[in-house]
Amino acid sequence: MKTQVGIIGAGPAGLLLSHMLHLQGIESFIVEQRTRDDIEATIKAGVLEHPTVELLKQIGVGERMVKEGYVHNGIELSFGGKRHRIDLPELTGGKSITVYPQHEVIKDLVAAVLANGTTIEFGVSDVSLHDLESTQPGIRYTKNGEAQEIRADFIGGCDGFHGPSRQAIPANLREEHAKVYPCGWFGILCEAPPSSDELIYAQSDRGFVLVSTRTPTVQRLYFQCDPKDSVDNWSDERIWAEFRARLANDDGWEIKEGPIFQKGIIAMRSFVCETMQHGRLFLAGDSAHIVPPTGAKGLNLAAGDVVLLTRAITDFYRNNSQDGLDGYSTRAVKRVWRGEHFSWWMTNMLHDFEGEDTITRRFRRSQLEYVVSSRAAATSLAENYVGVPFEGITE
Amino acid sequence: MKTQVGIIGAGPAGLLLSHMLHLQGIESFIVEQRTRDDIEATIKAGVLEHPTVELLKQIGVGERMVKEGYVHNGIELSFGGKRHRIDLPELTGGKSITVYPQHEVIKDLVAAVLANGTTIEFGVSDVSLHDLESTQPGIRYTKNGEAQEIRADFIGGCDGFHGPSRQAIPANLREEHAKVYPCGWFGILCEAPPSSDELIYAQSDRGFVLVSTRTPTVQRLYFQCDPKDSVDNWSDERIWAEFRARLANDDGWEIKEGPIFQKGIIAMRSFVCETMQHGRLFLAGDSAHIVPPTGAKGLNLAAGDVVLLTRAITDFYRNNSQDGLDGYSTRAVKRVWRGEHFSWWMTNMLHDFEGEDTITRRFRRSQLEYVVSSRAAATSLAENYVGVPFEGITE
Repeated sequence: MKTQVGIIGAGPAGLLLSHMLHLQGIESFIVEQRTRDDIEATIKAGVLEHPTVELLKQIGVGERMVKEGYVHNGIELSFGGKRHRIDLPELTGGKSITVYPQHEVIKDLVAAVLANGTTIEFGVSDVSLHDLESTQPGIRYTKNGEAQEIRADFIGGCDGFHGPSRQAIPANLREEHAKVYPCGWFGILCEAPPSSDELIYAQSDRGFVLVSTRTPTVQRLYFQCDPKDSVDNWSDERIWAEFRARLANDDGWEIKEGPIFQKGIIAMRSFVCETMQHGRLFLAGDSAHIVPPTGAKGLNLAAGDVVLLTRAITDFYRNNSQDGLDGYSTRAVKRVWRGEHFSWWMTNMLHDFEGEDTITRRFRRSQLEYVVSSRAAATSLAENYVGVPFEGITE
Repeated sequence: MKTQVGIIGAGPAGLLLSHMLHLQGIESFIVEQRTRDDIEATIKAGVLEHPTVELLKQIGVGERMVKEGYVHNGIELSFGGKRHRIDLPELTGGKSITVYPQHEVIKDLVAAVLANGTTIEFGVSDVSLHDLESTQPGIRYTKNGEAQEIRADFIGGCDGFHGPSRQAIPANLREEHAKVYPCGWFGILCEAPPSSDELIYAQSDRGFVLVSTRTPTVQRLYFQCDPKDSVDNWSDERIWAEFRARLANDDGWEIKEGPIFQKGIIAMRSFVCETMQHGRLFLAGDSAHIVPPTGAKGLNLAAGDVVLLTRAITDFYRNNSQDGLDGYSTRAVKRVWRGEHFSWWMTNMLHDFEGEDTITRRFRRSQLEYVVSSRAAATSLAENYVGVPFEGITE
C-alpha cells in the first residue's frame, strides 16, 4: 500500500496532522494500536490554549468545542489561606483558554478525518518503521493476524511517549533530556456541581491541589501524592478530608463533594527528545516531548509541532522545497522548550517536595506572592498559560 | 554610658540607622570591631538600587554619589554567543541603578555620622548583648583593654553575618533558612579601561562571568569558580584565558585586559533569620540575611530594613506607639524575601552547577531566551533589579 504521509498514532497529533494535510490536498493513512472506542473514551484533561482554539476553528473542527467548551477568562492561585485571580484577557490583550476535554477533541478529529475519506487502521499491533533514510520509508504492522506494510513519502511519528517512532531514531543521534518529579497527581472524577467557575491551582503545606471543572454535574479534581501510592489506600472519605485540609482558606469557600466514580494516579515527568526528526521520519507531540500536567500544555505543544510539520510537508510538495523539512526539529523545539520550561516552573512553584530545605519553601512562597502582586510577573504567567503564538504565525 | 539607640556595627546598616535616627532627633552610639581605615578601605561591589539612591539623596549623604557614581540605564545578558540588553528605565517607568562602591557609601556615612556629633567606637572587641527583654538593654565591649558598657532604650544589631547580635536571640526563637551554593566567585581588580559601559551578566557552559566597571582605569571582574579553589592556582594568564573562553561571542567584542592587582574568592550563600527582633534588639542588614551577589541586593536590603526600623523607633518616641516596633520583623522580612528570591533566581539562571542533568541546563537556556524576548519577563527582571519600593513608602 502507498500513501503520501504515513502517520503512526491517532492521538491529537496524528489526527490533527492528517486533517491539516488533507486541507492542503495531501493524502495520509493512519495506524493506531488502540480501538476507536478506546481512544474516544479515555478521559484526559483539556485546557486548550488560545492558539490551539483558533487553529481548531480555522481548520473546521471547532464547532462542537465552541458550543460545548467553556471559555475561562482567569485562573485562581490559592496559597496562605487566600485566593488570587489571574485575569487572562486583561493581561494578554484579550486572550483566554477553553476547557474542552482531550477525548472530545479526538472525537471531533476522528469524525473529520474519516469524513475526509482518510483511512484510520484501528487495533493494529507490531508496528515498526523501516528505511527511514530512503525516499520511501515504510510502516509495517499486523491487523487481524495479517502482516501489512505501507510505503510513504514521509512518516509522522505521533505515537506518544511509549510508541516505536522515537525509538526508530538511532540512539546515537538522539539526545534525550529527562526529569522525573518525586510526586504524582491523584485524580478523581466525581458527581458534584462545580466548586469554582475557574480552575484553582492551590499550594499548601500538605501539597498541591488542582480544582478543575468538567460539566455542570461532573468535576475533575487532583491532589499531589506519592507517585508510588495506590488508589486502594484512599477511601472517598479520606480523599475529601485531604482536599478540605489542603484548600482551607480564610473566606469560607468550600469544595463541593459528591460520589467519586473514577480514581487514578498519574506520574509527573519532563522529557524532550532532540532531534525530532531522522531521514523521512518526523516526530510530533508526546512521542518527542512530555510535560508535567501543571502547565496544561501537552496537547497544545503537539498542535505547535503539527502546524510546523504541515507547513514543511506542504512546502515540499507545492514548491519542491526541502528547507521546512530540514529545519523542522530546530524550529519546533523552540516552542516546545518554552512550554517545557513553563510547566517545570509552574510545577516547582505549586508543589512541595519531600526533603527540601525550608529556604526552598520560602522562595516558593515569595514567588507566589510576587506573581499575584506584580503586573509584570502575572503577565508572564498569563502569556504562557494562554499560549505563545505558533512559531512563524502572526496572530 | 547611656544613649537612646545602641548600634552594633558601622557597616551600611548601622551607619544609615544612626544617621536617619539623628535626622529624627534621636541619639545613638555605634560600636565597631574594625578600625575606620579598615572599613573605609575594604573594597566591595556597589550597585545601588533606585530606592537606595533616592534615600541617600533625601537624607543628605548623596552628594558625592551623584558626582562620582555612574548611572546605568541597562544591563546586558550574554549567552549563546550573543548579548541582549535589558533597558531599565524603559521597562520600569524611568528607574535606573547607580554604580558607586560600598566603601564609598561607607565613607560618606561615616563623615555624616561624625559630623552629627555621634560617637563611633572603632576597634572594640568582646562585644556582647545583655538584658534584651528589659527596657534598658546593654552592650558590653572592650576598648583599649578596658571593659565598657552602654545602656540604651533599643539595640540595633547591624554587625553582619558573623556578629554577636543574631546569636543573642535565643536559638529556639530563631528560624534560620539557609542555602549554600556549590560555587564561588573569583573576583579580580585590574588596571584596564572599561570593557563595557554597562554590567554584563554572562552565562556560558564554562560558568558565569560578571563584567563590571569601577572607574575609567580600574575594573572589577568575576568568574564562577569552585568555592574551595585557591587564588594561587590562577596565574594572570590563566585568568584572562578563562574570561576569553567564557565571553566568546559572535560580534567580535573582547574583554580589555590589564595588570591584575587583587584576587579573591567569595562564597555564595542565601540566608534569612526569622525573627529579626527579640525584646529590644532589632536586626538589620547582613546580621539577619545574606544574598548571593548575583542580584546585587546586599546593601539595598539593609537600607530597606533601616527605613522601617527608623520609622518604628521614631514612632515610639514621638507617638508613644509600640506598633511599628512589634511589627518590624514581619514587615521587613517581606522585602527581604523578594530580594532573596530574586537573587536565587538570578543565580540559578546564570550559573551552571556541576552534576546537574541536561534538562536543567536546557530549562536555563529557555529561561534566558524568554527573559530577552518577552516584555513581561524582561520587566520582571528589571523591576527587581532597580529595586522594589521600600515597604510602606509610596514613590
